[in-house]
Amino acid sequence: MTRQRDPEARRTAILDAARYCFGRHAYADTTIGAIAERAGVSAALVIKYFGNKEQLFQRVFSFADDAAALLDAPLEELSQHMVLHVLAVQQGEARDPILRIAFSRQHEDRGAQARADFKTSVVDGLAARLSGPDRALRAELAVGVLLGLGALLAMVQADALTRLTPDEVVARYRPLLDPLLLPA
Amino acid sequence: MTRQRDPEARRTAILDAARYCFGRHAYADTTIGAIAERAGVSAALVIKYFGNKEQLFQRVFSFADDAAALLDAPLEELSQHMVLHVLAVQQGEARDPILRIAFSRQHEDRGAQARADFKTSVVDGLAARLSGPDRALRAELAVGVLLGLGALLAMVQADALTRLTPDEVVARYRPLLDPLLLPA
Repeated sequence: MTRQRDPEARRTAILDAARYCFGRHAYADTTIGAIAERAGVSAALVIKYFGNKEQLFQRVFSFADDAAALLDAPLEELSQHMVLHVLAVQQGEARDPILRIAFSRQHEDRGAQARADFKTSVVDGLAARLSGPDRALRAELAVGVLLGLGALLAMVQADALTRLTPDEVVARYRPLLDPLLLPA
Repeated sequence: MTRQRDPEARRTAILDAARYCFGRHAYADTTIGAIAERAGVSAALVIKYFGNKEQLFQRVFSFADDAAALLDAPLEELSQHMVLHVLAVQQGEARDPILRIAFSRQHEDRGAQARADFKTSVVDGLAARLSGPDRALRAELAVGVLLGLGALLAMVQADALTRLTPDEVVARYRPLLDPLLLPA
């Protein structure tokens, strides 16, 4: 890791390092010192920016920012926007909320916090955008389709999918998502 | 862990313990001794049944058995069968191939082996069952839908989904899966 001089760059480096470490080790085995070393900063700076380990964990496993970005489109364009968003986050693997929610299973009770936050931010946030019957269920199913897309991109050698252009991926996913999102 | 006397039960206990340990710790940090302790057997018995750590890892991260069970239905009933299969494996979390493929990311190059095996067994196995254009892509998309269902059940508090009966879940997923599986 190269040493970062700019405060914002150092903040980002610390968050990236925390995601990396919490994503690969149990909470108890993850130290502020290891995160600081990976970020190329001092442990004191990590504490100055983010407080203690618990607070840093909660920051890393918060989905509020993801949800705001994921849902930032009018309803009739939402399926396209969400698919393109999943494709975009996939390019910066460390920020992928799908991997974070998967890895949060390692963290026992803290994983439950992360899953509750994902539910509130992403699933309930989407349901609030929908109208018509079964909004909560339709939001869950649509999030499931997106989680599946993320899983294909991140974890499966989906060669045919990854050969598609983003617009072609959107064209394949709209028939899956639009019936869930748009009023019948 | 209670001590298992029956050979088949001990074999199952060892595999369950191996899935648990490899799912939570890096390959280098996982020992035959820890797996044996969790299974309530001796390390010597683990080696007798499964060989060395590498062989045990490959056994745990093989998807051939999952794929055979997942795809064991005629094409016109396959969407229903696969959805019910995902619901069923979800009841025995340790055997869930979705969690295994997610956790395999921790294992670096060994994770790549697991993903290649998942692709060959599950994705290519499904594609071989399909006819018509874009079979490889349609198989990937269908597997993605199922991975998404598994992710909803395992990692998201999908309250509306989990209130459904299995038949109701099938009814919700057939419109997503059948257009991908059945010839147009």
